[in-house]
Amino acid sequence: MELENLAIRKLEERGVKIEDIAEITLFLQEKYIENLSIDDCISYVKDVITKRESINAILTAIAIDEVAEKRLIDNEICNIILEDSGLYGIDEILALSIVNVHGSIALTNFGYADKIKPGIVKVLDNIGKQKQQCHTFLDDIVCAIAASAASRIAHYGIEKSK
Amino acid sequence: MELENLAIRKLEERGVKIEDIAEITLFLQEKYIENLSIDDCISYVKDVITKRESINAILTAIAIDEVAEKRLIDNEICNIILEDSGLYGIDEILALSIVNVHGSIALTNFGYADKIKPGIVKVLDNIGKQKQQCHTFLDDIVCAIAASAASRIAHYGIEKSK
Amino acid sequence: MELENLAIRKLEERGVKIEDIAEITLFLQEKYIENLSIDDCISYVKDVITKRESINAILTAIAIDEVAEKRLIDNEICNIILEDSGLYGIDEILALSIVNVHGSIALTNFGYADKIKPGIVKVLDNIGKQKQQCHTFLDDIVCAIAASAASRIAHYGIEKSK
Amino acid sequence: MELENLAIRKLEERGVKIEDIAEITLFLQEKYIENLSIDDCISYVKDVITKRESINAILTAIAIDEVAEKRLIDNEICNIILEDSGLYGIDEILALSIVNVHGSIALTNFGYADKIKPGIVKVLDNIGKQKQQCHTFLDDIVCAIAASAASRIAHYGIEKSK
Repeated sequence: MELENLAIRKLEERGVKIEDIAEITLFLQEKYIENLSIDDCISYVKDVITKRESINAILTAIAIDEVAEKRLIDNEICNIILEDSGLYGIDEILALSIVNVHGSIALTNFGYADKIKPGIVKVLDNIGKQKQQCHTFLDDIVCAIAASAASRIAHYGIEKSK
Repeated sequence: MELENLAIRKLEERGVKIEDIAEITLFLQEKYIENLSIDDCISYVKDVITKRESINAILTAIAIDEVAEKRLIDNEICNIILEDSGLYGIDEILALSIVNVHGSIALTNFGYADKIKPGIVKVLDNIGKQKQQCHTFLDDIVCAIAASAASRIAHYGIEKSK
Repeated sequence: MELENLAIRKLEERGVKIEDIAEITLFLQEKYIENLSIDDCISYVKDVITKRESINAILTAIAIDEVAEKRLIDNEICNIILEDSGLYGIDEILALSIVNVHGSIALTNFGYADKIKPGIVKVLDNIGKQKQQCHTFLDDIVCAIAASAASRIAHYGIEKSK
Repeated sequence: MELENLAIRKLEERGVKIEDIAEITLFLQEKYIENLSIDDCISYVKDVITKRESINAILTAIAIDEVAEKRLIDNEICNIILEDSGLYGIDEILALSIVNVHGSIALTNFGYADKIKPGIVKVLDNIGKQKQQCHTFLDDIVCAIAASAASRIAHYGIEKSK
């Protein structure tokens, strides 16, 4: 599907590969599933990204990050988004559009990943803090996709991808 | 607080007055509370808008509507936002940042208002459909504020504002 | 699957047939989908009930209603549940376990159905008010299943069931 | 308020003191707030418990745990609740009634606490696993209250309690 490929391409343009997200999923789920491989996780991450909710969330999140980065919106909200304060909260809410459709395991894993910032999430966070690029919305989207893939693995096991 | 006044001013710039939102709150709650007046509702709507979650949601929602309207974002997501399909769903999710902090009564009233589109919500929806302006996110924000004010009235009654 | 059949049987024991829920789905969705039939809706309602989240929510909701009805829990919380006040709110939250996994269209339809109480929802509500049985949790579960089926129809159309 | 005291008493009966919850809040928030004390955290935990949503959630959660423990509900759902599988999910959903009204910071902290099970949460989890008592719902409620108190501290700072 065309929009799905666009979503994957936009993620890559912004510095996030499918493998980066799959590594977080592996980190979240390997203690529960024996022999879980990075390839299993890549397969499940792709399943999550196929969903319309994910595509819409990815494209919207990146659009907001980009207009904030280019300062195409009013100064006050632009500064709030660029600052990425914990008190802003709209970035986590937008990510819920992906998390919610994947159930409670996705929700707790999302909160966990959002707090500990594994792998690419920390990279995005650091780039954002250096004011080079704005990843206020994207880092939460990455956590949401990784956590949702972890939930799918918990629900369906690893047989499916084999 | 300065940001609160900015939020109110942006709402007005986009065609929404506090009174317009308060009328929806009155419509939602007058069958449960005797002698509920439009002034009571205005007071509760202002209480909702004072909250940080509301200010952030209002300013972000309007920023997205504006960049879509001016076509400052990628074509594909721009067209999706302008079309405001029921399948998009990110607009309702963003509004949840206001609704969630006001509890279950806010949630059911939000769903109800979003479906029947009372007063200014219908006006915004029609303007959006004529492609004059984009109100894809704003109409859900208006429903969210009105529903949250209705929830506060259900919880605290009308004495407070008198 | 055995648990799914148990969930359907418990719904029937408490006075709710699949057809009753499908009628609400038809009511919610017929204005958007041409030629939507009650049989289409029954098929989608069954799809929703197949999900683990739905089975767990149905069985838990009915268990709480039953222990409240038989007064097997502490007096204070028992009375709060039997009263089914709008300010209680836990019944709507439990129903979200079904609604959330079906996206934004399920959410707004849930709020709408919860407010207008179509068909069997009103019947359950009235029985509850006469203190014959407790349906504090069940009526929200019925709204949640009907709204989630409506969301599936909006997403996948009616071809699937034909 | 009487119901608030009942909620605190029921928590204690089930093995959870206010101080136990406050210690989790301190653990969650001390890296962000200088000089945050356990007394500050106790004060904020009490604020959270005062809310109607919290009281209703606490009393309902404990009621379900107790009827499962005493096997007063149907065998199938009783076994599912006693097992406390990650796939059950209704316990996390019920806890959201507290978390949601405290915003995004509460949500991510809830997911984090639910995964790492600090302090009393691990104690409850272990007792539950030994089938001595059922704490399937209570451990999530404890995470929810602690995370919500952490969110209040992030929003309002520690001045308030001094």
